[in-house]
Amino acid sequence: MGFKIGLLGLGTVGTGTAAILLDPAGRNPLLQEIEIKQIGVRSLSKARNVNLPSGILTTNLEEIVTDPEIDIVVELLGGLEPARSLMLKAISQGKHIVTANKAAIARYGDEIYTAANEAGVYVLLEAAVGGGIPVIKPLKQSLGANRINNVIGIVNGTTNYILTQMTAGGANFDEVLARAQQLGYAEADPTADIDGLDAADKIAILASIAFGGRIKREDVFCEGITQISAADISYADKLGFVIKLLAIAKSKDKEDTLEIRVHPTLVPKHHPLASINDVYNAVLVEGEPLGQVMFFGPGAGAGPTASAVVADILNIVGILKSSGKTKNLDPLLSCSHQHFCSLIPIEETVTRFYARFLTQDLPGVIGHLGTCFGEHDVSLESVVQIGFRGTLAEIVVVTHDVREGNFRQALTEILNSKAIDSIPSVVRVL
Amino acid sequence: MGFKIGLLGLGTVGTGTAAILLDPAGRNPLLQEIEIKQIGVRSLSKARNVNLPSGILTTNLEEIVTDPEIDIVVELLGGLEPARSLMLKAISQGKHIVTANKAAIARYGDEIYTAANEAGVYVLLEAAVGGGIPVIKPLKQSLGANRINNVIGIVNGTTNYILTQMTAGGANFDEVLARAQQLGYAEADPTADIDGLDAADKIAILASIAFGGRIKREDVFCEGITQISAADISYADKLGFVIKLLAIAKSKDKEDTLEIRVHPTLVPKHHPLASINDVYNAVLVEGEPLGQVMFFGPGAGAGPTASAVVADILNIVGILKSSGKTKNLDPLLSCSHQHFCSLIPIEETVTRFYARFLTQDLPGVIGHLGTCFGEHDVSLESVVQIGFRGTLAEIVVVTHDVREGNFRQALTEILNSKAIDSIPSVVRVL
Repeated sequence: MGFKIGLLGLGTVGTGTAAILLDPAGRNPLLQEIEIKQIGVRSLSKARNVNLPSGILTTNLEEIVTDPEIDIVVELLGGLEPARSLMLKAISQGKHIVTANKAAIARYGDEIYTAANEAGVYVLLEAAVGGGIPVIKPLKQSLGANRINNVIGIVNGTTNYILTQMTAGGANFDEVLARAQQLGYAEADPTADIDGLDAADKIAILASIAFGGRIKREDVFCEGITQISAADISYADKLGFVIKLLAIAKSKDKEDTLEIRVHPTLVPKHHPLASINDVYNAVLVEGEPLGQVMFFGPGAGAGPTASAVVADILNIVGILKSSGKTKNLDPLLSCSHQHFCSLIPIEETVTRFYARFLTQDLPGVIGHLGTCFGEHDVSLESVVQIGFRGTLAEIVVVTHDVREGNFRQALTEILNSKAIDSIPSVVRVL
Repeated sequence: MGFKIGLLGLGTVGTGTAAILLDPAGRNPLLQEIEIKQIGVRSLSKARNVNLPSGILTTNLEEIVTDPEIDIVVELLGGLEPARSLMLKAISQGKHIVTANKAAIARYGDEIYTAANEAGVYVLLEAAVGGGIPVIKPLKQSLGANRINNVIGIVNGTTNYILTQMTAGGANFDEVLARAQQLGYAEADPTADIDGLDAADKIAILASIAFGGRIKREDVFCEGITQISAADISYADKLGFVIKLLAIAKSKDKEDTLEIRVHPTLVPKHHPLASINDVYNAVLVEGEPLGQVMFFGPGAGAGPTASAVVADILNIVGILKSSGKTKNLDPLLSCSHQHFCSLIPIEETVTRFYARFLTQDLPGVIGHLGTCFGEHDVSLESVVQIGFRGTLAEIVVVTHDVREGNFRQALTEILNSKAIDSIPSVVRVL
């Protein structure tokens, strides 16, 4: 037994991780050289779904991160504190870190990686994005030859499940959310998922790796899926689209300037991301000279996420076996960038839009829309009067690429017109 | 300039690789520490599609693999010799190897990896399978926590292009092959692609990594796509399938026993591999506890393949920077297994089958088919009389899972019956 692990947390992913480490047969032979020394938990008496060697549990988490015998601390507590402090303490003690904590890394990555670089230890986080899908490591290690143009992901399983069910069954958001909660696909408080915050954490991490700069999480634009209606999904379908919550990061012409945003998006049906359904996740990376590659798989769940956690543990053990106690980090696996990227504000982004209008049934309304849009440089790809909702006419518009600020100004002006009742939905188009 | 590269070969992929290494701006900063010292070519006078520093070309390939200043030899000659000998020579001189040569590795991997392990050098080959798609490294480094059940790939772009075009246009094989040759998607001698030999090389490599044992390439069962007709594609479509050339590797219950086969396959339309079209490749890996993950992208082309070659170069440089001159190899990146897996013969494999029969238009023919199949334990999922071809009735059968040997015996018996004219096609079903 060469390498000793300290596990912080024994929830769903912690239990999955322990189960793999305690049953190595048939897996990578390197696992046989890895031993869990201690697992830090809140309660020693709680029933567990895994058979643990006696005496392995402790409520003293400080003891784990300072234990001189432990080589790698695996942080699966989630949340910001005490996760952040424990990771920093472990780093200061020269321990490598494996974590699934997207929230802590998206917010405190700067502090954590600076400390890790000084201490000469790795902080690996494959499980933080895309569950079991290898995506962080391929971004770090397999795409370095490329100038990355963009990274687009379906990185939240809960919202993808909800949108898939709404698309398949024509149901409304609230019904499907309730069903997802019954099935355990959505949490009792689903805010972080349905408001896009979880996806924003994840795209901040992916962008930081893909574009080699730090990202201020609070600058990431984020819009959730609560306003998406069955009507919009049905109109999108007729126009040749499905609606997905996408997390998008794009490089801009100016160096170290990025566009990062999370929002529901109309995705053309033939696009590779359009067929990613239910709780599956996928990340599409586009670069030069590579073109498009996509990574697809289960975005959550104990087994898949534990698979990613253990992959990171194996990686560190592989490196320790080959390089011994050197404190030089492999620049592809460590976080070697220090500077922050600047993100352009959402008004400056350029995209296509879908918008649905309820208007009085008067002649000239479509002409009026077209004129208002034209005055703000918004060029229309299609305008369709779908039918009536009560006494109001329902008109759906898809624009060509347009600066968001211009589009919003046009909408404000349009809403001032008496002929326009309301604009129930505005969704960006990929 | 810390690290020196010797490039063997300046064809399509070699040119793409040189182009990236000579123009590092905007790519991974580690590229700035890498220098091409020499490029070995057959002709010094040939026009090249990349601007090279003067004096970098040489026809003396031996000199490159023995140059004490060169850290990494990048073998892009293709073919078996002199590629094999040059790689072995370079290894004996302590140089790391990056190669895209699936044919040489599938056949001489045993010899090459044994030499590399003795010398303490890496032999990386991301570009050998799936062009620009990161798949070898994820298999080695990101899935080690899993018991891998199977690896299924669309790993040959030429045949996938041909089958996609046949599906879209209803054209026959010969027409589409001719068009593919005009477009440069198929070679003048397309044998290695259309007979499945290239895919067999690749699945032998993937299986070796996924299942941690060496594979005898000559034991891999291989059937090409030349017998696939427009009629079969059309019937498959009606039954809910598309036809793809799949490369399949499965673990069997017995340790170190595998099933590896390459053949055209009916793939259910909802399966993730069904929508991989044209020259794109994809590799689907299924394991416990992970479930399914899929890697998708461009399976060939100068840019994508060069992206994979340069990723391997970067990996080695990253390791050299962190671990210095240690001769201990990272067990996840080196080839640590020595034993050979045993492959079960094709007659012992169990799969579903699609078969098309031309029969006399007599009462009782379908009953006769059913009886013959029943006597050999072949259970039928569906039997459809499609219509007539001339005076003959056309009957299509899809079986449940059946041992291939039993199915073949039943077919031989069926062919002996006077009511049966011929069996124009037999295709396995995923």
